[in-house]
Amino acid sequence: MKKVAVAVLASGEGSNYRALQAYEGAPYEIALLGTDDPRAPALSKAREDGLPTALLPPEGFPSREAWEKAMVEVLEESRVEWVVLAGFMRILGPFFLRAFPWRVVNLHPSLLPSFRGREAIARALQRGVSWTGITVHLVDEGVDQGPVVIQRPVPRLPGDDEESLTRRIKEAEHHLYPRALHALLEVPFRVEEGRLLWADERKVRLLCGEPF
Amino acid sequence: MKKVAVAVLASGEGSNYRALQAYEGAPYEIALLGTDDPRAPALSKAREDGLPTALLPPEGFPSREAWEKAMVEVLEESRVEWVVLAGFMRILGPFFLRAFPWRVVNLHPSLLPSFRGREAIARALQRGVSWTGITVHLVDEGVDQGPVVIQRPVPRLPGDDEESLTRRIKEAEHHLYPRALHALLEVPFRVEEGRLLWADERKVRLLCGEPF
Repeated sequence: MKKVAVAVLASGEGSNYRALQAYEGAPYEIALLGTDDPRAPALSKAREDGLPTALLPPEGFPSREAWEKAMVEVLEESRVEWVVLAGFMRILGPFFLRAFPWRVVNLHPSLLPSFRGREAIARALQRGVSWTGITVHLVDEGVDQGPVVIQRPVPRLPGDDEESLTRRIKEAEHHLYPRALHALLEVPFRVEEGRLLWADERKVRLLCGEPF
Repeated sequence: MKKVAVAVLASGEGSNYRALQAYEGAPYEIALLGTDDPRAPALSKAREDGLPTALLPPEGFPSREAWEKAMVEVLEESRVEWVVLAGFMRILGPFFLRAFPWRVVNLHPSLLPSFRGREAIARALQRGVSWTGITVHLVDEGVDQGPVVIQRPVPRLPGDDEESLTRRIKEAEHHLYPRALHALLEVPFRVEEGRLLWADERKVRLLCGEPF
């Protein structure tokens, strides 16, 4: 079966890039890693892996839309069909999103709609929750507001600090993100009133390693 | 050991009242059931159980504070030390809360801060979350904003509708609420910057039946 070409956009460590790359039986192949930050360790990781990369620092472009046009062109040249955000720190606007309608996916370190935006883990700790988690969602023009693909709760354990909780959240991400992408590529879905509706949700849960 | 006298305030079915009543090994005893609604099934249940009840319909009082004063007087006459809200539909104001500082506890059918306010379960379904849950919290002057005591996630299952999800959330409530109250009465805590800090959180988790 032909694999779906995806791009990973990352501004940070690239640990989710590595998890997506390492996932066995993927119906996707990572065609390109894009970044806005020349110092992103994700960029070095992709270069080590011999992957095509696109480094587009925003300072080089007169507007957000100009940056988005350039990135979309690069992605289209690589025949990319899906865009996977993995610690990508720029907000994508309408130009970019129209080029990949409901084909841009993001991961947020909370159970949305709780703790949208930055510092989600630190804010969850401050709020004193006993459970937080992660959300894979499709990207729309809001921030951390798009249709939920799948979520997973992660407990705050007694004695947790930001570092230890972040570590466990990252582990959950590395497990869930490739599987969620797998589900998006294999199980038909539609979006209705901001909600993602699967043709076969049981299959999604199975692919994501959930016991129900 | 002398048991702590608690009042349960309820406006609805009283299923959490029953769960609190049925919990074995409770360090509390329910001294009184209070309600604002003469038609609340909770009221009939308490009467069947031979429990003292206080029915205070708000129409009988000139102001919210007058209602609160009357209820506080009833509770103080019964030597009530803690107030447990169980589907109680009135918002308690400063007069009431000052009479029971950090000794009013509530249960909300979501993982706060997600889905504060009414129709929490319906709104979670609309939003398309794959996990929701319940939150036991101390009551402050905000709505569903007080310090978190403990939470429990509940999955939305494929095929769930509001009725089936509500049923599973209720089961989680009936399990968790008595145990959370047990922890509040037995494990010292303080509140700092809106956050509940336990002297021994591991004991809390054990009392609440969590595996960690």
